[in-house]
Amino acid sequence: MNAPHDFSPRVDPRPVPAAMLQALRARFGERCSTAQAVREQHGRDESPFPVTPPEVVVFCESTEDVAAVVALAHEHAVPVIPYGTGSSLEGHLLAVQGGVSVDVSRMTQIVRLNPEDLTVTVQAGVTREQVNREIRDTGLFFPIDPGANASLGGMAATRASGTNAVRYGTMRENVLGLTVVTASGEVVRTGTRAKKSSAGYDLTRLFVGSEGTLGVITEVTLKLYPLPEAVSAAICHFPSVQAAVETTIQVIQMGVPIARCELLDANAVRAVNAQSKLGLREAPMLLMEFHGSQAGVKEQAQTVEAIAGEHGGEGFEWASSPEERTRLWTARHKAYFAGMSTNPGCRTVTTDTCVPISRLAEIIDISVQEAAASGLPHYIVGHVGDGNFHLAYLVKEGDDAQRATAERLSMQMVQRAIALEGTCTGEHGIGLHKMGFLLDEAGAGAVDLMRQVKRALDPRNIMNPGKIFEL
Amino acid sequence: MNAPHDFSPRVDPRPVPAAMLQALRARFGERCSTAQAVREQHGRDESPFPVTPPEVVVFCESTEDVAAVVALAHEHAVPVIPYGTGSSLEGHLLAVQGGVSVDVSRMTQIVRLNPEDLTVTVQAGVTREQVNREIRDTGLFFPIDPGANASLGGMAATRASGTNAVRYGTMRENVLGLTVVTASGEVVRTGTRAKKSSAGYDLTRLFVGSEGTLGVITEVTLKLYPLPEAVSAAICHFPSVQAAVETTIQVIQMGVPIARCELLDANAVRAVNAQSKLGLREAPMLLMEFHGSQAGVKEQAQTVEAIAGEHGGEGFEWASSPEERTRLWTARHKAYFAGMSTNPGCRTVTTDTCVPISRLAEIIDISVQEAAASGLPHYIVGHVGDGNFHLAYLVKEGDDAQRATAERLSMQMVQRAIALEGTCTGEHGIGLHKMGFLLDEAGAGAVDLMRQVKRALDPRNIMNPGKIFEL
Repeated sequence: MNAPHDFSPRVDPRPVPAAMLQALRARFGERCSTAQAVREQHGRDESPFPVTPPEVVVFCESTEDVAAVVALAHEHAVPVIPYGTGSSLEGHLLAVQGGVSVDVSRMTQIVRLNPEDLTVTVQAGVTREQVNREIRDTGLFFPIDPGANASLGGMAATRASGTNAVRYGTMRENVLGLTVVTASGEVVRTGTRAKKSSAGYDLTRLFVGSEGTLGVITEVTLKLYPLPEAVSAAICHFPSVQAAVETTIQVIQMGVPIARCELLDANAVRAVNAQSKLGLREAPMLLMEFHGSQAGVKEQAQTVEAIAGEHGGEGFEWASSPEERTRLWTARHKAYFAGMSTNPGCRTVTTDTCVPISRLAEIIDISVQEAAASGLPHYIVGHVGDGNFHLAYLVKEGDDAQRATAERLSMQMVQRAIALEGTCTGEHGIGLHKMGFLLDEAGAGAVDLMRQVKRALDPRNIMNPGKIFEL
Repeated sequence: MNAPHDFSPRVDPRPVPAAMLQALRARFGERCSTAQAVREQHGRDESPFPVTPPEVVVFCESTEDVAAVVALAHEHAVPVIPYGTGSSLEGHLLAVQGGVSVDVSRMTQIVRLNPEDLTVTVQAGVTREQVNREIRDTGLFFPIDPGANASLGGMAATRASGTNAVRYGTMRENVLGLTVVTASGEVVRTGTRAKKSSAGYDLTRLFVGSEGTLGVITEVTLKLYPLPEAVSAAICHFPSVQAAVETTIQVIQMGVPIARCELLDANAVRAVNAQSKLGLREAPMLLMEFHGSQAGVKEQAQTVEAIAGEHGGEGFEWASSPEERTRLWTARHKAYFAGMSTNPGCRTVTTDTCVPISRLAEIIDISVQEAAASGLPHYIVGHVGDGNFHLAYLVKEGDDAQRATAERLSMQMVQRAIALEGTCTGEHGIGLHKMGFLLDEAGAGAVDLMRQVKRALDPRNIMNPGKIFEL
């Protein structure tokens, strides 16, 4: 078992030559910044890694802007790190080899909306909330919801998913095509707007999840879905985490097309109660959502309520009004920050394992026992319908002993997930943190194939170098 | 616009050295064949290309067998062509550079069935009918159904889909992981049994659709689905192909979760009537299937019937009994051969375009007019719910003028599909036939990325060389 990557990412900068800096300034003017505050903001994310700033930040507004930066970086063999909203949890944004941060957060145009085809093309900086706001009038929505209001470019780059994936899939299933700036600064379009294709290698899926290491995603074509006729949310309390998990397993095995199925343990409920004044019973809970016709939603919910009842679930409560639903889901999405706010001055070490659904009860059971025994503050939230959950440890900033304990326990859990034929990351990506785990999970042969692809597409190793695997 | 690849594939054989042949015979004995009949059987598929036999055929029974052949081929720089059931329509199996055909049709083991996780791992030679037969007792099924009883290895290699894809997706969405023998003869496992993952590059999706050019797929882990509580099929006749297509578009735009939505034009109905004695009215027809709860299926069908009614659809007929459904779907699946049997001594030139759903009426309309004006026998079948359809021309074997006309019309249609933001192949793959089209569709930059990946993973160009793109 390989250790996760060291906490202090090796900083091995490749300086930005004066000629390149000059060329960037000439083209971008004030949109090219070397200010300390700007650099520091771009050298961190939501991970517990120390700030590791890039040398320059360029605020791009178009694919052409990005291509211009990458062409210069290619010429001077300087690292390029794409930056969206900074919500990575795995150190993706840290400039461990220096270089240029390509900030796409100003690329917020809806390039093309085709409601009649259920597709939309957006610039990489458009966030999931923005896209849903802008298409509201069409009766369509984009379901992928990782919690954070992430950029679609970043979501594609990390193969993000979240609460709705159990029904609608992940970014893997919901990106039809991409515009990518390759490592040599060329602009390439992958995919078409057709729903399916067998035309050559699946470049779209190669870039989705490549974490900026093969190119910079500048536009994303997404699948949209008709807003369901009926949506209804329900919460149900359980005597134990196990009971909630067993309920979930049975719901999935029966093929109930549940749209969201989220676990919160008592600690997570306590945190969101404290932050959002929800007054939820502080017990393990499933937060569910059903999409369909009026009759279909009712039918699904009845099936689930019956299964929950067999496992001691009680207090099945409904939230059919949009306001109530929003309140519940907002609370769920805030769990990460709620957890932190219950322990001021701490940072979160969170796992992201995903296992075959039948092994979920087993892995959660052992992990809960270990977490309780550790004495560290912790909580569990999970997209349990997919077998994906996050055990978050709250460690005091700067407390190396706490962090080491949290890391050791996380590592054991990942070992367990891999042994159960699962993955070290369901949706956050490898980044800096899980490079060792990737090797354990995929094996040296598969990681070698990834390296060969990387070397072929980025021979100068300028695209977000030092992430996913060592070259 | 690039022409499709020439009809007579350039045969540029790289001879199998005596030492390699000896080594193959030593290991495989009678499972290694150079008999003319065996070689010819392995040098053709269902495409109109002339037989182009490999030099040797090896019948493999395990991943280790395949690895042994590929290791020898790697050593001697000899081409390797994976062979499943021979049902390709695009010349994938032709040994255009000579070499060894690796026949996996004896690799028919169900490696591991995990009904509790809705997954199964099969050897590459298992066919879709076999897998469904063997899992029948679990209450689960594997939905992807390209018509032919293809091997799962071949289906993964061409990113196949078919009738159920409108609801369940294609091989892209339904392969969780693969065992692959790489070009150097190493065995690599991609993916895990977890439903989702963000762990590194998506090697699974890179091999799915790579048409044997990056490695030989020897095992496939598939997603399974609970058999729906209720299934019901319906046929509906329309005054025109247009009316049937308009109905389909509206059904998809409304988000009805229809499981199958197949178009047959009057010619296709005539052919299946002649072959299967179905007595269907010889008019354009939609053949549909609904999956869900009893109530859900009824609700879907009512919605669709109402939409069809608005477009002049009539004679909405039900087939709820499994026998009736089987009869209808068998007829649909036989359309390809039924078409040929109505014109003895002919072969089929078929297109496989897929367009955004809103452009489907437009492209089918023009294509039907062109086909009628050509005077060539033809018919249309289509997975129209996905925007994918096949216009098949029946050309007399050896009649170059007919074939040229069919090719010219097909080419025009592909041009049109690409101009409408569609793809030259929804599910058959590029093979030999569509190499020119791929360049038009994806652009030189994207095809170059594919080439770079190919060169990196198969530096000696031994894996099914001469397919997808020229190196």
